[in-house]
Amino acid sequence: MARRIDHYDDPAAPAANSIVPSANVAVIDDQGQILVIHRTDNDNWALPGGAQDFGESLPQCGVRETKEETGIDCEITGLVGIYTDPKHLIHYTSNDEVRQEFSVLFTARVVGGELAASSESREVLWLAPGELAERQMDRSMRLRVKHLLERRPSPYLG
Amino acid sequence: MARRIDHYDDPAAPAANSIVPSANVAVIDDQGQILVIHRTDNDNWALPGGAQDFGESLPQCGVRETKEETGIDCEITGLVGIYTDPKHLIHYTSNDEVRQEFSVLFTARVVGGELAASSESREVLWLAPGELAERQMDRSMRLRVKHLLERRPSPYLG
Repeated sequence: MARRIDHYDDPAAPAANSIVPSANVAVIDDQGQILVIHRTDNDNWALPGGAQDFGESLPQCGVRETKEETGIDCEITGLVGIYTDPKHLIHYTSNDEVRQEFSVLFTARVVGGELAASSESREVLWLAPGELAERQMDRSMRLRVKHLLERRPSPYLG
Repeated sequence: MARRIDHYDDPAAPAANSIVPSANVAVIDDQGQILVIHRTDNDNWALPGGAQDFGESLPQCGVRETKEETGIDCEITGLVGIYTDPKHLIHYTSNDEVRQEFSVLFTARVVGGELAASSESREVLWLAPGELAERQMDRSMRLRVKHLLERRPSPYLG
């Protein structure tokens, strides 16, 4: 069966053979709640996002992925950080792609839409920051959410 | 002969078939001068930079490319913007790669090294902002330098 295996700082990990830019989006509503998805492929919670397609900019990618995974239309408002740690590798066993992390976390505001689950998101919720911090998430998403909730004065550049 | 052809918003351009993250770096010295290179492959001036390699983060890429092209060691201090405009395509005729723009412009300070030209940079100079603005550069570099000199309060996200 095809699997996704995350490696972090693992001397036994295979060598990276791809870098694919992706966007994550922290959509924040008028009450300061944050839009999150409960992933279908594992039990983790995450901010919506995914890989950039040809023909779109990275902010456009974030808007498209958010719509697909949550039903919400958003507008990008700012940047939390850039996450390009070569120690984080994602191995897709179906084609032996070994992807080196490359993600950008944007902030956004709601401009329309209705909450809707998808094939990638079994639940979609608005969570207060304190509730978000308590949900199960993978290591890299946890770091991004931490930076988001810290309201850093300048973007994280890692 | 192998060529690089830049297309911008060109209906006749070939379709993109790659996205390769790259870093540009605006190294600024104590007098507010900016480190620039005179490119060997054309008559343009540019901030140092280039494509990310496997095994390095994007900020590390910026530091490495700056060292290779200018001789200067630097430390990343901030972010000017993210440039991922799908209308900008770069066609490499040697292998028919058609690369969609993906560049991040960092700021940096000097931590060591000596000015040195390279195979990619026939001249390396420190220029005052007003002098930099007058040099010949390509369209995408011009936009990045404009944003740098504006000292925008938050990063450009394009």
